[in-house]
Amino acid sequence: MHLLSAKGFLANGVAAGIKQSKKNDVGLLVAEEFATAAAAFTTNKVFAAPIEVGRKHMRQGVLKGVVLNSGNANACTGKQGVADAKRMCNLAAQLTMADGDLFLPSSTGIIGHELPMDQVCAGIRAAAADLGNSEEHALAFTDSILTTDTVRKFAAATVKIGKKTVTLTGICKGAGMIGPNMAVPQATMLAYILTDAAVPSAVLRKLLKQSVDRSFNCVTIDNHMSTNDTAVLMASGYSEARITATDNARKLLDALTDVTTSLSKQIAADGEGATKTVTVRVRAASSEADARKIARAIADSPLVKCAMNGNDPNWGRIVSAAGMCGAKFNPDRAKLTLAGTVVYRNGKPAPFDPVAVSEKLKAKEVLADLHCGTGTGEATVWTCDFSKEYVSINADYHT
Amino acid sequence: MHLLSAKGFLANGVAAGIKQSKKNDVGLLVAEEFATAAAAFTTNKVFAAPIEVGRKHMRQGVLKGVVLNSGNANACTGKQGVADAKRMCNLAAQLTMADGDLFLPSSTGIIGHELPMDQVCAGIRAAAADLGNSEEHALAFTDSILTTDTVRKFAAATVKIGKKTVTLTGICKGAGMIGPNMAVPQATMLAYILTDAAVPSAVLRKLLKQSVDRSFNCVTIDNHMSTNDTAVLMASGYSEARITATDNARKLLDALTDVTTSLSKQIAADGEGATKTVTVRVRAASSEADARKIARAIADSPLVKCAMNGNDPNWGRIVSAAGMCGAKFNPDRAKLTLAGTVVYRNGKPAPFDPVAVSEKLKAKEVLADLHCGTGTGEATVWTCDFSKEYVSINADYHT
Repeated sequence: MHLLSAKGFLANGVAAGIKQSKKNDVGLLVAEEFATAAAAFTTNKVFAAPIEVGRKHMRQGVLKGVVLNSGNANACTGKQGVADAKRMCNLAAQLTMADGDLFLPSSTGIIGHELPMDQVCAGIRAAAADLGNSEEHALAFTDSILTTDTVRKFAAATVKIGKKTVTLTGICKGAGMIGPNMAVPQATMLAYILTDAAVPSAVLRKLLKQSVDRSFNCVTIDNHMSTNDTAVLMASGYSEARITATDNARKLLDALTDVTTSLSKQIAADGEGATKTVTVRVRAASSEADARKIARAIADSPLVKCAMNGNDPNWGRIVSAAGMCGAKFNPDRAKLTLAGTVVYRNGKPAPFDPVAVSEKLKAKEVLADLHCGTGTGEATVWTCDFSKEYVSINADYHT
Repeated sequence: MHLLSAKGFLANGVAAGIKQSKKNDVGLLVAEEFATAAAAFTTNKVFAAPIEVGRKHMRQGVLKGVVLNSGNANACTGKQGVADAKRMCNLAAQLTMADGDLFLPSSTGIIGHELPMDQVCAGIRAAAADLGNSEEHALAFTDSILTTDTVRKFAAATVKIGKKTVTLTGICKGAGMIGPNMAVPQATMLAYILTDAAVPSAVLRKLLKQSVDRSFNCVTIDNHMSTNDTAVLMASGYSEARITATDNARKLLDALTDVTTSLSKQIAADGEGATKTVTVRVRAASSEADARKIARAIADSPLVKCAMNGNDPNWGRIVSAAGMCGAKFNPDRAKLTLAGTVVYRNGKPAPFDPVAVSEKLKAKEVLADLHCGTGTGEATVWTCDFSKEYVSINADYHT
């Protein structure tokens, strides 16, 4: 399986010379005909030019495709930036015989530099000249969105709708500047999700919002929301399965959430400098909102993240993070299980062997499970540890 | 000047063997007679036993003194912890001929271990046996509150009230787990502030609340609120200057805020692993609340803090942090000045020499000044950079 296993789409990615590394940095993804579509964007008040243009182009709920570059975020670039994002769309449209406002532009990379439009346009032309739906094409496109990512991120699911099999596929990028605002459902990185089901755009919007809220909005690397975050869901209809009834939409939502959840975990695992994924599960909180607040406070605490890096079963930092976030929390009723061992119960530490738990914390995936004992609210947040490498990557990054 | 330059107080600190380092870990500070007093405590829902006891003992607004230990936080220690905190007060009271509920207990150090009461009690007895008001006594007490601090933190001010000169002195500790909740005025570490003015406790409470809100609540190291934070202000009346009228209270508030602001900056400078202090000043925001939100979002962003560590004039991280925090913010009106150089103006980067600005960022104190251009709200937050050393300290700390 690859991104283009969802039928009805073509893609390509090329190295246009925007990245110094000579890796792929311009990508084009188009529907063979047209796709219904929905998108979610950053809620940062400092948003990049492609976000401004993309919001307008999403109004009709139909896309011909996506045109993007990495290596330059086209953010804080004023009117020129907006003109450049539109020009990317118009060129992609001209090469695929569509209208410019049927393209969604995306950019990711350094902030505050105007796009090198000669290279970007040459890249779009080169990508358009060799569109295809092979695995090679899918990987070339996938590579064109990466920046500090160390691995590709891909997920797929299939679901039976009536007698038809619908395929859902998705790719995303994101390793730093990952910290969605939980209050407002939104995207937190670049994510492109395709399906060959036939879905009205109003339904797509609802599905995307619900799945983003339970997946991309629940991953945090450094609690810093980007200026360019975009998630887009496109449906080609090529499987001939029509999503109209509520029960079918439910099935598709479950498959979609599987895909976006997998992508979210892959982002956490590839967090800048990360040595492990930390899943923070909060249960039996006073409300779902409180569960989320508690899970985010734990996952965003640098002290907790450093302890995870040092394989230190420091339950005090976890429990005190839960207590400081403003959510209802009664330490006397809470139980914390760290990598399978109860380390805190009813207001006091539980007796445990710190050496044995520390050994368990060396795993690539660690679960911190906090049972609050005050209600039925649940939430899960994925994050990673904080390492010296994280500081290196972000202290030595060149502006 | 030292802590006991404010007349009417005696203190001492001893090494009772709670810290493995054999440094001072039990302290006693008493009024020669009695002091009016006010205190502010952590709002973390996970609060230590001495906080529970201290809140009750502050109800009368009068203290004989403060009894404390470092090396053990007496937090998450259940009923035994509360009994131990009371026992500390009762022993201190017995040795100074006062009532137990006239003592404020404090503890700081590791969470989840019962206090070694034999050592604590022996320490209190030893400290009480040699109380004095010399500089040596002041320093011995100061040392008894330190944990990961690398330097003592002291500040003083004098103010003329009528014909009398009033002295204000203060010490504090704090290097990690520093992140007050701005919404609720509160303390963020251990701070002991003395004055020899005569001040009714109702006035003291008001003054402490106002000064804490503008100082300790504006310092953040890692945005992690502690379970034990306490700030106490005690007034002996020994200067014979009486604070009753509003204008005199105003004068005392200014002096008090000078002292607490100095202590706050010293905390930022001594932040775990810090190589520099970063002052984030936000001006012309839509409201004071928005200015605070923006300043805190910038000061708490790991990406901004890593950039400061690397002397990187990464204005994109600072401006995008302002945009993500939910406050009103219009990037097209904002101006960011970094270490004296305008680096961003009206939605776009300003032309600047990155090498020259990077050189300026190597200073021990750096100012990031964000002019929002949308109102009159102002706020200042003090923080420090994020270094590999911070990760070391907090990854290798032994639970």
